Amino acid sequence: MKLGDGVEAAIHCCAVLAGTGQDATISAGDLAEHHGVSASYLVKHLKRLVAEGILESVPGPAGGYRLGRAAEAITLADIVLAVEGREPAFRCANIRRRGPSPLPDDAYLRPCGIAAAMLSAERAYREALQKTRLSDLVTEFLETSDPRVLERGCAFVERARRPQPASG
Amino acid sequence: MKLGDGVEAAIHCCAVLAGTGQDATISAGDLAEHHGVSASYLVKHLKRLVAEGILESVPGPAGGYRLGRAAEAITLADIVLAVEGREPAFRCANIRRRGPSPLPDDAYLRPCGIAAAMLSAERAYREALQKTRLSDLVTEFLETSDPRVLERGCAFVERARRPQPASG
Ligand code: FES
Ligand code: FES
Repeated sequence: MKLGDGVEAAIHCCAVLAGTGQDATISAGDLAEHHGVSASYLVKHLKRLVAEGILESVPGPAGGYRLGRAAEAITLADIVLAVEGREPAFRCANIRRRGPSPLPDDAYLRPCGIAAAMLSAERAYREALQKTRLSDLVTEFLETSDPRVLERGCAFVERARRPQPASG
Repeated sequence: MKLGDGVEAAIHCCAVLAGTGQDATISAGDLAEHHGVSASYLVKHLKRLVAEGILESVPGPAGGYRLGRAAEAITLADIVLAVEGREPAFRCANIRRRGPSPLPDDAYLRPCGIAAAMLSAERAYREALQKTRLSDLVTEFLETSDPRVLERGCAFVERARRPQPASG
């Protein structure tokens, strides 16, 4: 099982933007530089977050990205599913119906128990991701990081933030 | 997030072999034909199950595969991790340490909270998979399947099983 490597960058960007506040944006270029990834790579993932309302994109040369709603209303599940898509990790190809001596559809009214068990485990995964809010991650970061890490993060946000008129 | 498509075939094969009993084997060719997949594709996954002790391979022209231990002692987690590997789906590339103004190692003694939350959700997934035993899946299959499906499964096992001397 593998998550795309955009997930890590996406969550870190959301955490930085939670710290930036909704009255300012940060450009994709600055977010990419701070995280040591290419801007074009990052923009692909930021666009998915915008499509799901997790981020908002302010156009124009002084624009950039900010959270689309409060950090308390964004969960890890929101971010992961936005970047990775909502399709389950386990994809049942109905293998039970392949092979010789096929049976008619009405012999398979119940879902396969194997598929059901796999999907139920995925629900447990998504529920765990739903329990962690972006605001929890930011609080934990602020409360437990080394002072030098906090200072580096704050210095970046101070330098990169672009004040914006309120949205909406 | 995506699981390899070998997982479905691997679990179905284990379930068939649980129904076969440990006094007989089924060949990779018969398992592949019954599940409508290619034998070379299937063997790759069966080998991983053998490496983890979930299956046992009996060599020779009259050989094949059987469970390596009782179906009660095999969980969905065992099968999925054997096929997919034990590496976590979320791979932290330490993105927090990239970018300009790097800090020394001792500023990062605590694991990143984002990685910790992602890995904790994966633990919930694996724990859910651990709760389902292969024997549970077989019982559920026997108790809830359409009679025609049961008959097709039993007919396959009767035709394909190769009696073997007891192992060990
Ligand atoms: S038919 Fe797909 S998991 Fe059983
Ligand atoms: S540094 Fe990898 S998840 Fe935070």
